[in-house]
Amino acid sequence: MKYENLMLNTDSENPLYLQLADSLRHAISRGEVMDGERLPSIRRLSHTIQVNPATVVAAYRILEQEGWVRSRPGSGVYVRHKKNLADLDITETDLRSSLAFQHTNDGTFLDLAAGTPSPDLFPVDQFKTILHEVLDRDAGWAFEYQHSAGWAPFRQTLSRYAEEILQISAPPSTIWVVSGAQQGIDLTSKALLHPGDRVILEAPTYRGALGAFWSRGADTIALPLYPTGWDMDLLEKRLAETRPRLLYIQSRFQTPTTYSWGTEELYRLLELAAKYDAYILEDDLLSDLYFDQPPEPLNLKSIDQHSRVIYVRGFSKVLLPGLRLGLLIVPPALQNLYEQAKQSSDIATDSFMQRAVDLYLSGDHHKRRMDELRERYGRLYKHSISTVSQHLLPLGCSQHSCTGGLHLWIGLPEGIKSADLYTHALKTGVRIMPGEAFQDPTHIRLSFACIEADQIDEGISRLAQSLKELMHTPLY
Amino acid sequence: MKYENLMLNTDSENPLYLQLADSLRHAISRGEVMDGERLPSIRRLSHTIQVNPATVVAAYRILEQEGWVRSRPGSGVYVRHKKNLADLDITETDLRSSLAFQHTNDGTFLDLAAGTPSPDLFPVDQFKTILHEVLDRDAGWAFEYQHSAGWAPFRQTLSRYAEEILQISAPPSTIWVVSGAQQGIDLTSKALLHPGDRVILEAPTYRGALGAFWSRGADTIALPLYPTGWDMDLLEKRLAETRPRLLYIQSRFQTPTTYSWGTEELYRLLELAAKYDAYILEDDLLSDLYFDQPPEPLNLKSIDQHSRVIYVRGFSKVLLPGLRLGLLIVPPALQNLYEQAKQSSDIATDSFMQRAVDLYLSGDHHKRRMDELRERYGRLYKHSISTVSQHLLPLGCSQHSCTGGLHLWIGLPEGIKSADLYTHALKTGVRIMPGEAFQDPTHIRLSFACIEADQIDEGISRLAQSLKELMHTPLY
Repeated sequence: MKYENLMLNTDSENPLYLQLADSLRHAISRGEVMDGERLPSIRRLSHTIQVNPATVVAAYRILEQEGWVRSRPGSGVYVRHKKNLADLDITETDLRSSLAFQHTNDGTFLDLAAGTPSPDLFPVDQFKTILHEVLDRDAGWAFEYQHSAGWAPFRQTLSRYAEEILQISAPPSTIWVVSGAQQGIDLTSKALLHPGDRVILEAPTYRGALGAFWSRGADTIALPLYPTGWDMDLLEKRLAETRPRLLYIQSRFQTPTTYSWGTEELYRLLELAAKYDAYILEDDLLSDLYFDQPPEPLNLKSIDQHSRVIYVRGFSKVLLPGLRLGLLIVPPALQNLYEQAKQSSDIATDSFMQRAVDLYLSGDHHKRRMDELRERYGRLYKHSISTVSQHLLPLGCSQHSCTGGLHLWIGLPEGIKSADLYTHALKTGVRIMPGEAFQDPTHIRLSFACIEADQIDEGISRLAQSLKELMHTPLY
Repeated sequence: MKYENLMLNTDSENPLYLQLADSLRHAISRGEVMDGERLPSIRRLSHTIQVNPATVVAAYRILEQEGWVRSRPGSGVYVRHKKNLADLDITETDLRSSLAFQHTNDGTFLDLAAGTPSPDLFPVDQFKTILHEVLDRDAGWAFEYQHSAGWAPFRQTLSRYAEEILQISAPPSTIWVVSGAQQGIDLTSKALLHPGDRVILEAPTYRGALGAFWSRGADTIALPLYPTGWDMDLLEKRLAETRPRLLYIQSRFQTPTTYSWGTEELYRLLELAAKYDAYILEDDLLSDLYFDQPPEPLNLKSIDQHSRVIYVRGFSKVLLPGLRLGLLIVPPALQNLYEQAKQSSDIATDSFMQRAVDLYLSGDHHKRRMDELRERYGRLYKHSISTVSQHLLPLGCSQHSCTGGLHLWIGLPEGIKSADLYTHALKTGVRIMPGEAFQDPTHIRLSFACIEADQIDEGISRLAQSLKELMHTPLY
């Protein structure tokens, strides 16, 4: 990489050290500076790009906190993005695709990491019938180009689905069909963000969102997430200081923390977004996968009176991930920007699958499936927390109780790193999701999405054994 | 838009006027400066951002040439991106999706614009059988997450397909499954381009590619395309001047010109790309849709000895567009960059469709279909040129003969604008593709992709009538 070409703008409101951190992060994430490569010394870089050495120090510190570089005293600052980003970015999908080869095995492999419902629960026969119906009705025309926003009848169905299932009132003209929630986030990034724009997001959060924001050269500001949302005064301070273009949240059963925002915080959030002219991207994985009562409100978008909220929902968690279908609700003022973003990304989403899921959502199939999933996961959740209480809490772990979702977020005893526990447990045939995948090494995520009750017992009991051994290892 | 925030870097090799044009284009394409809005006067902008007025003049001139702004003497420079970009960007897909509502009509509507094979030619029954087979074999697991690069067995099938059908030797590890050719272009843009990077491309060319490059803030340099490729000396000059990161070409039956590159030019292109350290993105729509003999070489990638060529092929033209499936071949050195680009775009492509097309390509279906398509389109091509000779050439039109593809590229008599002919012909029930969709108002594209021989006769004869009337309109 040619460091002399780094562009810093002394006239910008954006401080130089943030600009520099941003450029370097960009270069690393694009592979221009390779894993293991040493960055220039502080003196050399400050000389090359003509800034104060303190600017370089501040930029390097940010990158180190974010895990992009590691500084080795007396030796220099080294890039280490492989370990922290590329590897962990793909953990979840990798686990799942390798899992596809596991399901014929003898079953001794216990998966507490997979975060989407088991494919064995997928309504195969119903879907077969539906695919037939689509082909009989539309023949080859089922495979035609669609408008970028989606197949018109499907947008109407999704508008009804939003109204009935998600309590969101959104006319079909505001509904976009996207190729999964990740694309919804990426399109938002493409439509709204420019290099140097700021995005405030929850810490910890979904790595895929960070990837999409960073790929646009945006600067992400992580604000600690508490069980009922952000510290709203701190948020206002950050809004005033950084004037972000976008806020990114999961208001219900957040991944990985399982936290749900309080009602008061949600209303305050909408108010502040309006006051500081920011949009909010709500990533709603599974607000309708509650155990007993629906949360009130069900999600942020349902109380968005002033069109500040862009809402995205993939069907990975409530249907199946390989479909790559999602629903995006876009405020009217932003429609044109999304049109261009979607056009230049992939023109439109698979038209055949739009028609199939259209039929699926139009009938009773989905409502019945959701009832089954709620019953199932409510039961597995209760089973999981009692098992955790029995095996893990006595070892000094903590857990947060929640009212929906597919996961538990377990705090580890002081000094234990979740990546170490992950590695240790894997040797005993138990897979967990280390908190490092969400930038938090003090926790692990345990999922009951794709596993039965007796396997949960066996898995958590083995995990407790691993943890005990780790706690008694001399290194700790 | 706050013009005082425009970032220009006086230390960059990139001249200030190009940086300025780039920033403004970016702002316009993102809707920060709205359609119809007046840009600041030359004096004011040069004062605001502290550059020489000549820099602003040069930047505005570039934008005008590219069609982003229109200068009105004595009044100022106005944005006009709607007319030129948004509208025309979606022309082709819009035509096709509205066409889906036409096929039940009385057939008097004559479509010489649609550029993909008629859905009526789609092998519906075969596909039904295949979907069944996939569901019987994989059940719900067919809908699992895939690795970002694609489902492993499908990557192997595509590697064989590349070898047998495309004459390209590419190991499965270099094969990426993408959601259509447009996504292949967008991922390349995301993986390789930074704001201010240059891309040299053919003029005229596919608007969707421009959109993808511009969305990354890249600067595109259009080089006139001749019947056997670029003026290679001019190319070398431009390479030396602008040091582009990427060249974008369609080597066979280019859209819209139908031109095919000469063998000598292709080899020189590879040489120059290596010499100036640029990559080439080859967008191969339909090199295997030749009429009699396959072109030699079949495509650029097949003679790429030094891994300079990124190859993308959608299945829109040879299968059907709504599938949103494509094949991308990525040089080994770039794999990591694409991994991140695909992950943050949509994680992975629809896994069920990958399995279905995997079965389809593994059997004889596709080879037989291609034989049928070659026979069909060879016949329709011959029919079309003889009809054009009879009706349009006598009016002063020109045509280029070609050896494959789905289109004719017809030069209009001097002074006739293709958008006017488009509007005029539409009133008589004939739809053509105006050259403006490809930045060339002196030509029209006529397609025989989705129409029968007798409809071609009728359509072109009505078109000739429209042209005659237009030529005798007093305005002309």
